[in-house]
Amino acid sequence: MRSVRVELQRMVSPIHIGFGLLERMPELLARHNLQGELVIISDERVAGLYGERLLTALGAAGRSAHFLRVPEGEGAKSLEQCEVLWRKLISGGFSRSTIILALGGGVVGDLAGFVASTFLRGVRLVQIPTTLLAQVDSSVGGKTGINHPLGKNLIGAFHQPELVCIDPALLATLERRDRLAGLGEVAKYALIRDRALFTLLALNLEALTELAYPELCESIIETSCTIKAEIVSADERERGERVLLNFGHTIGHALEAAGGFSHFRHGEAVIRGMAGAIWLSRRIGRLSRAEAQTALDLLTRLAPPAPPPGLRPADLLAWMARDKKRGPEGQTWILLEGVGKAFITREVAEDLLPPALAFACAGEWRAP
Amino acid sequence: MRSVRVELQRMVSPIHIGFGLLERMPELLARHNLQGELVIISDERVAGLYGERLLTALGAAGRSAHFLRVPEGEGAKSLEQCEVLWRKLISGGFSRSTIILALGGGVVGDLAGFVASTFLRGVRLVQIPTTLLAQVDSSVGGKTGINHPLGKNLIGAFHQPELVCIDPALLATLERRDRLAGLGEVAKYALIRDRALFTLLALNLEALTELAYPELCESIIETSCTIKAEIVSADERERGERVLLNFGHTIGHALEAAGGFSHFRHGEAVIRGMAGAIWLSRRIGRLSRAEAQTALDLLTRLAPPAPPPGLRPADLLAWMARDKKRGPEGQTWILLEGVGKAFITREVAEDLLPPALAFACAGEWRAP
Repeated sequence: MRSVRVELQRMVSPIHIGFGLLERMPELLARHNLQGELVIISDERVAGLYGERLLTALGAAGRSAHFLRVPEGEGAKSLEQCEVLWRKLISGGFSRSTIILALGGGVVGDLAGFVASTFLRGVRLVQIPTTLLAQVDSSVGGKTGINHPLGKNLIGAFHQPELVCIDPALLATLERRDRLAGLGEVAKYALIRDRALFTLLALNLEALTELAYPELCESIIETSCTIKAEIVSADERERGERVLLNFGHTIGHALEAAGGFSHFRHGEAVIRGMAGAIWLSRRIGRLSRAEAQTALDLLTRLAPPAPPPGLRPADLLAWMARDKKRGPEGQTWILLEGVGKAFITREVAEDLLPPALAFACAGEWRAP
Repeated sequence: MRSVRVELQRMVSPIHIGFGLLERMPELLARHNLQGELVIISDERVAGLYGERLLTALGAAGRSAHFLRVPEGEGAKSLEQCEVLWRKLISGGFSRSTIILALGGGVVGDLAGFVASTFLRGVRLVQIPTTLLAQVDSSVGGKTGINHPLGKNLIGAFHQPELVCIDPALLATLERRDRLAGLGEVAKYALIRDRALFTLLALNLEALTELAYPELCESIIETSCTIKAEIVSADERERGERVLLNFGHTIGHALEAAGGFSHFRHGEAVIRGMAGAIWLSRRIGRLSRAEAQTALDLLTRLAPPAPPPGLRPADLLAWMARDKKRGPEGQTWILLEGVGKAFITREVAEDLLPPALAFACAGEWRAP
């Protein structure tokens, strides 16, 4: 037998964070040698808020861009919408040197990212996330995807952006509720990996929610992205450590699904999911009551809405059973052994799940 | 402005070549730590020829596999067929630990590879190519894709296989015509990069066509894969040197398209395309007449069929204008300055194209 090896180069995906970066896009594109035709993909709402500003900034630097709008909301993450975009790109004569700029929240980033990863076998992608959730989570790490009638995010690809450009000034147009939901993902990074970030969050939660201190705001986004970058760098394709990022997501996804993906924001469902995971961490004896309560107190201040009336634990269990991260050996759980310290386990007895779900849905969180 | 970097690990994609490797698949999967549920994707013809043998070999090693059949032919490279496969994988409950084995020629490899690259954001892929073209070209390098109503291979992704398993014994069931077309791609590697391979081909063409010497056959496949691996390793995403692999493909693709993708085999169209590129290399004064004739003599022996009657040069020019490798700066050409030495240029005057196309379509090739 003869053998040959294809050895691929490493890739670096840079992330820049700063107030006012939207206006500095031409400079950032030039710095990273991103020449080529530009196509901005955005949704109706974000296009209305920031589309003109981005086009003006690019125009001032002598760069034009083609603008493609998609409908607002999760429904745009569909194969039908992909086909619309593919067809526009093909019939518009766009070549492999095209650069797609995803201007929007998680939905736009996932959809535009998937289109970028599949058009002509992949064109370059720049993420310009406009929600806190997208700035600290979905725009970083290369996950792209769409929904399938049989489930969310079932079709997708890993496609690393050439550049992620994070401008926290864009968060000013978000509802307070969306900023709190985004801080839920920041709390996730703190709980799994960084006690100092947790303390910073706990001390400044109100100021962060109001974007009161730009420096502080940039700092917690930078720390969140750094944690995500470290974990993704070690495990791009989620075969190992990257599952840590799913802390709170197993129960969270079930809550989102049971709420028809409209009752909860993603971050809100994750906040409740983290509470459930903390309850499990206590019950299997890996987390002290004091640490659990400290974590739960912060989650309480993030004020996730109550679950929809009539939610049945059996429905949540059914949704959890369909989780795509569930391997043949059963559900993997991300639990805590302290604030800032997560671990991976399969050792969670099935009969603990109904009370954990009930705890996640509760109106008040007292560590058991 | 704050900055963070995501740095991705390098990936290695091993290729093994040997007579009888189909039966040794369980050993190869184990060696590369490819545990997980197996899904074989194959077309009706190849499934009938080799499906049972692969299942039996896996079964003898205690591994079961799910078998998904797709129709034979280029028509299977469609979004509709992807949807059929995605739905079967989702409703079959397959997880991210699934491994997709693509058993077939280029069509199956491209389709199964694209499904593997997009199901649950990518599952592991093993290529088991069954045509010479797939063994020396399409199974290596991670290109996957499907066709779009507006053009071929317009939707796709780069997804490196965990393993490519090449068994030249599987070529015994190919028509002679398909083996000659596959040798056209081997000739391409020789012409762009390896004079020794060219000599080996020229001296042993008939024996290679008849698979007469297993050692020699393995050797030319290994050399072809090594050349492709070197080029792909340096430039996975075809932003630079990888375009060398398109030698003969600019005119070749136009011939394939003008023949309705049924008149020519891909390799046959590339053989005629290489003749056209050699003519251009002569006309711009970069290749000696003796070298050109040496190359053309080998291409003549590969005996590509005559073009379809009524083929119009204007149609070929129109197809070339739509080539997806055409950048905003115009067509990139891969030409020769000697047997084994290719170069990249944009310096080809438009008025040379009609005579180059006429030469590619000619019945006899005399170097100008």
